[in-house]
Amino acid sequence: MNFCSHCGSSDIRFRKPKGDVHDRFICGNCQTIHYSNPKIVTGCLPVWEDKVLLAMRAIPPMKGYWNVPAGYMENGETVEEGAKREVWEEAEAKVDIKGVVSLYSIPHINQVYIHFWGQLLDLNYKSGIESMDVQLFKESEIPWDKIAFTSSTFTLKHFFEDRRKGRHEIHTGFLDL
Amino acid sequence: MNFCSHCGSSDIRFRKPKGDVHDRFICGNCQTIHYSNPKIVTGCLPVWEDKVLLAMRAIPPMKGYWNVPAGYMENGETVEEGAKREVWEEAEAKVDIKGVVSLYSIPHINQVYIHFWGQLLDLNYKSGIESMDVQLFKESEIPWDKIAFTSSTFTLKHFFEDRRKGRHEIHTGFLDL
Repeated sequence: MNFCSHCGSSDIRFRKPKGDVHDRFICGNCQTIHYSNPKIVTGCLPVWEDKVLLAMRAIPPMKGYWNVPAGYMENGETVEEGAKREVWEEAEAKVDIKGVVSLYSIPHINQVYIHFWGQLLDLNYKSGIESMDVQLFKESEIPWDKIAFTSSTFTLKHFFEDRRKGRHEIHTGFLDL
Repeated sequence: MNFCSHCGSSDIRFRKPKGDVHDRFICGNCQTIHYSNPKIVTGCLPVWEDKVLLAMRAIPPMKGYWNVPAGYMENGETVEEGAKREVWEEAEAKVDIKGVVSLYSIPHINQVYIHFWGQLLDLNYKSGIESMDVQLFKESEIPWDKIAFTSSTFTLKHFFEDRRKGRHEIHTGFLDL
């Protein structure tokens, strides 16, 4: 942050506001405090019989790698609405959300992944604008060495484990670099 | 947003970047796209025998009302670390986190509440800087008409229901205005 987005001043200081315990960008001119907080990546693993739907990323980072359909949650939506929107944007698929699979923090990049699983409503899926390919995979067919992000690996492993147990529950974790 | 925080230009337009489906604040001078996304409010309900610990807010909004200790998640921490930090800041209490109680979206104010429950480690709690009072309550003692936010009511109701069932699980919901 070089300039105050409220008044345009370049007098930006990184220090603790009164009563706060964290440093913030504060405008020396209009005193606006500019907060920065983690973002939610919301997504859903679409399930059809014994298969799950993954999307191959058409954009960096990790272009050409497979991923649980997910993306940044937008203002004005619920976490579930965001997950369904991402499934539509990446795989043009419709899901009925069934439960939360994972809550996965990546503190060094200020992200929190929330992955649901959901029933795929039909087989009319196809690559959305951000995907090169969309495919259903049985557990034995998952390309583990071609998964884009650790959040997807975490979700896939726990989803299939829970499925074998016959009971789905939330799994929490984080990436420690 | 009146000025670009990167270059200081006042040429800010709200429109769709190429390849995006959402309007964003874009700087007409340096082309920086300024994203705005929901924030996470992370917290934890501390549990001691058949009682839970609530904090009375010392600051607006809802000053004087009771709340599950919670607050904005900060950059660089996991959701769990944020929850423990908030329990400390508001109630000077230490907890061992046991599970997620609720994932609760409030889309009209771009917030997502994530409430854990946790074992209170000792009884050395007291009001933190943002609290006027901290007290343990049995379910029958909860001041339901003096709870600050619907997220806390949601969490408290589900926590006690689950406790009666002998099984804790995640509950998802949202505030629809």
